[in-house]
This record gives sequence, C-alpha cells and structure tokens, in this order.
Amino acid sequence: MIILLGASGYFGQAFEQELARRQCQFRPVSRKQVDYTRFDSLLQLLRDSKASFVVNAAGFTGRPNVDACETARAETLAGNTLLPLTIAHACAAAGIPWGHVSSGCIYAGAYVDNRIEKDLTQPHLKRLAESSPESFRGFTETDEPNFSFRQPPCSFYSGTKALAEEAISGIGQSYRWRVRLPFDHLDNSRNYVTKLLCYPKLYDNVNSLSHRFEAVSACLDLWERRAPFGIYNVTNPGFVTTRQVAALIQKILKPARAFEFWASDDEFYQNAAKAPRSNCILDASKLLNTGVKMRPGPEAMIDALQNWKS
Amino acid sequence: MIILLGASGYFGQAFEQELARRQCQFRPVSRKQVDYTRFDSLLQLLRDSKASFVVNAAGFTGRPNVDACETARAETLAGNTLLPLTIAHACAAAGIPWGHVSSGCIYAGAYVDNRIEKDLTQPHLKRLAESSPESFRGFTETDEPNFSFRQPPCSFYSGTKALAEEAISGIGQSYRWRVRLPFDHLDNSRNYVTKLLCYPKLYDNVNSLSHRFEAVSACLDLWERRAPFGIYNVTNPGFVTTRQVAALIQKILKPARAFEFWASDDEFYQNAAKAPRSNCILDASKLLNTGVKMRPGPEAMIDALQNWKS
Repeated sequence: MIILLGASGYFGQAFEQELARRQCQFRPVSRKQVDYTRFDSLLQLLRDSKASFVVNAAGFTGRPNVDACETARAETLAGNTLLPLTIAHACAAAGIPWGHVSSGCIYAGAYVDNRIEKDLTQPHLKRLAESSPESFRGFTETDEPNFSFRQPPCSFYSGTKALAEEAISGIGQSYRWRVRLPFDHLDNSRNYVTKLLCYPKLYDNVNSLSHRFEAVSACLDLWERRAPFGIYNVTNPGFVTTRQVAALIQKILKPARAFEFWASDDEFYQNAAKAPRSNCILDASKLLNTGVKMRPGPEAMIDALQNWKS
Repeated sequence: MIILLGASGYFGQAFEQELARRQCQFRPVSRKQVDYTRFDSLLQLLRDSKASFVVNAAGFTGRPNVDACETARAETLAGNTLLPLTIAHACAAAGIPWGHVSSGCIYAGAYVDNRIEKDLTQPHLKRLAESSPESFRGFTETDEPNFSFRQPPCSFYSGTKALAEEAISGIGQSYRWRVRLPFDHLDNSRNYVTKLLCYPKLYDNVNSLSHRFEAVSACLDLWERRAPFGIYNVTNPGFVTTRQVAALIQKILKPARAFEFWASDDEFYQNAAKAPRSNCILDASKLLNTGVKMRPGPEAMIDALQNWKS
C-alpha cells in the first residue's frame, strides 16, 4: 500500500493519476482525514494502513508566487521543512521507505566551460546558451546547494527546501526527487507555460524544466526498479531559455498578444519580484543512468504545447 | 535515568549541577558522543539508556548576540526548531516525557492597564513601570506569542523558538519551559549582569528575568512533582527596568565607570542592533500555583549581585 500525502496539490494530482494508471494499491491522504503533520497521527496511519512506501507531494509554494513565502515564514517552514522531517521520522520509526518531492531551486546558475556561473541572466551567457548549449553543464546531486540559507542570498522558499534535504538525509531510506519549473499540456496556474502566458512581461533566463507527468512517472519508476535511495535530479535533460519557450508558444499556441521582456534583471526585481529567483541547470544523468526515461526538455515542451488544453 | 542534551551550554551546565546536587541518576550527552540531532541515533540512545525523562537544554543563540541568527539561518533553525521537533518525535516513539528550554522572547510588551502594549521602550511606559508597577501584567501561557513568524516583526531567533513551541505542542508529553534574560552570581558572557557591565551603552526597557539556577531548579521541580505537562513561564515574578538593574549594579558592584544609556530606541537600533529585540513581561502565576518557588525578580537580582563572582 502506497500512501500519498499532498494528493490535492499540483504534483499530488499527477501522482494520484499515475498511481491509478499503474493500478498500484494506494491511498491519497488529505490533512482533513489525517493530520499527517503530527508525528503520532502519521505513524498511526502508516502502521494501520500497512504502508509499504510513502510519497510526499505536499509543500508550501506561496500564492500567487514564491514572494509570498518571504512573509509567510511559519507556513513555509512548516510545509517545506518540518513536514518532511516529520515524515522522515515516522517512516524511520515504522521502517518504511519514502520519496519526497524536493526542488532544484536550491541552486543558482550552472557550470559554463567548467566554471560555476551563478547568474545566468547575464546577457552574454543567455546568448551563449542559445548558440553553444554544449558549453553548459548542470549541477549534479553531489554539488552542494548554492542558493540556500547556508549560501545566501536565496529566497525564503529555497532556504526551507534546501534545509529539508539536509535535515532528512541519512534518516531511514528516502528518495529526494528534485523537480524544476513544472509544465505539461494542462493549463494551470502552476504550469510554467500558463505562467509565461499570464505574466505581463517575461524574465529572460536559462533553466532546466520538469514535465510534470514524466517527472512523476520517473519518481515512481525509481521506486519500482528499487534504484538506490538518495537524491535524484528529476528534470528533462538539457535546458531552455525563456525566449526559446516563448518562441515555441508563439509558434504553436499563437496567443493574441506578443511577449514582452523586462529590459534587465534590475528592472525585473524593481517591478515584479521581491525575493531573488533561482535560475539553474540541473544534470539529470544520475536519473537517466538508472534506465529511467525523460525526453529532452525542448521535445517535451513542444509535445505539451501541441496537446495544449486550456 | 534522565538524559541531558546540551549539557555544555549555559542552561545545560546549570541543569548538570542541579541534577548532581539532587543526586539524580542522569547522563549528560554531547553531540560528539551521540548525534542527538538525528532521529535514529537519539531514539537508540533513549532505548539503550532506559531513559525516564529527557531535558533539552541545547539551542542556538547566536554569538556575540542574537543578531548573528539573522544570517546563520540554517544553524538557528536546526538548533531551535528542528532539534526540538526531532526530540519530540523520538520521545513520543519511545514513550518518554521530556522538557524543552524555550524562551519568553517570543513576546513583545505586556498588559498595561489591561491593554497590550507591544513597545515597552516608550518613555511614558518606562516611567509608569517604575512608579506604578501594579499597572503592569505579564503574558500568560494562554496568550499567543506576538513576536514570532506568525506575528512579525520578530527576530529570526524568536521566530524559530516560537515555531518550535508550536511544532512540538500536542506531540507526546512535554514541558516547554520559557526562560528570559538569564542571570545569576557567576560572571559569564550569557549572564544579563555581565552583558550590562560590558555594553558600551545600555538599552533601557522593561523585562522579566530568570535567575538561572532558580529557573533550572523550578524546571526539575515541575517534573519531580509531576505537574501537568505543557507550557510554563519560568521567570522570577515581577519585572525590572534596565535602569533599576543598572542602579543595583552601581550600588552593589561599584563598577569603575558609570552606565550610559542610548538616548532613544532609534539610536539603539541605528548603532547597536540589527534584529528587533523582544522586551516583555511574563506572568509566572501558573508555575507558582503548582507550589514551585521563585523569588521576586528584584530580590533574586540583589542576591546575585551580593554574591557576585567575576
């Protein structure tokens, strides 16, 4: 029996759908049914349900965006750090392995010609990303997060996600699945494509992305194949610039209005953002080397746009 | 067997001394011996040692002062929120009651003529505190913390302490002992008297204090008497203004130089502090009503000064 926590969230819904498609025996648990933020209640649930695996898709992301986490500190910490720690403890006490939906937003930048560049919004790097993508290499699971409370500046959200990974590592048996900028073919306020369509102006940068359904499938594949526990970057291989995605949207979805971009990083932060944003490339080799499949980012994006449902 | 965590810290040392004085069977545990920040290791320790009670005197306070916690966020959260949560879980899993040294610094202000005044540094309130102390009433254990991530502004330190109380409440059986501005007769950088002697200028305000050895003794008394679990304000009854303590120090210790005060709150924050400071009065009635003794604050302070050891 797989226990799914946070089933009503953006990733939770995809896990629920994929578990059903695979005809897995699973139980989505809402906080109304069981307050799984409390150790005692969660441990009881795990024992009563004879759980064999737990998926934590719950978290606090901030509405309308990550800036909300700068002020909602208690909720951000409770959802992104204390909850995973509690799950780690309950799973360890019950001897059950589990998987945690973590985030790649605990990094800034990428390796460019083998040197870490933290700010991918520098114009020459964006040009290089489009003309010579082979110069870029993503962070691997052995790279220390560099956009965290230990390596500021970071957003409060990113700080709590990085701290969670640190806190749960080495306790029991867990997967820490790092996803980034989720998207797919379903219009949704959490979908990266929907976000680009809704923003008055776009912030041009370079990022790895995660196709939501592919990512969720990859997470479950890791467990089904009994891949070694640990951290996995669950992103589509490669990366995209915002301009590349905007061009694809323009070409395939043909929105009524043309995209506009902030003239500079400064203009973006002065007008549209409070907390620093994580822009980064993750290396998905560890995941792919287990035999789990993820399509290249641009290919997955084109497919999502061609099947777009608003 | 009582397990004492954080024995090397300021409160931990006092607990160790008091437990020895009472001839309790206890074991001070350092993180070098057992990494009690990890659930598995701590649970193993509790089971192996047949623990009957756990005292958590560990925490991260920031050096040289609480401002250091504004930047050392991971350490502050790990020490003040994640550690107590981990102890709560391990104690619940092992069925062992425990006590946590919390802090009164999750409040700002006091009730003045039955109305909450958050800023006790207002000149008319400081005058009133000296002339009509009966107009003042402290916060009780049922008052919601008002200097926390949920009720900003707060210092990062206070936010993590308040969040810990919230996170551990209702899990297993625990005492949350709230202490404030510890002092006693032993010169120490954590001693409120030492701090006043060392600051170039003093910040005048109104506060409840905790005589360290009386507070530690009161905490252990609660457990020995099997007082109901829950939150207890472990402060000496009453309150003092900084000027009152300075006058006592002047009279009894006769330091070479006279005390100087910041002209205003603004001057203090511009020159000497980064994070907002908690100044507050706590009501110790709940503790005293259990029969546990604490001398009035001014009396305990005079005694400490008369027995001062530098």
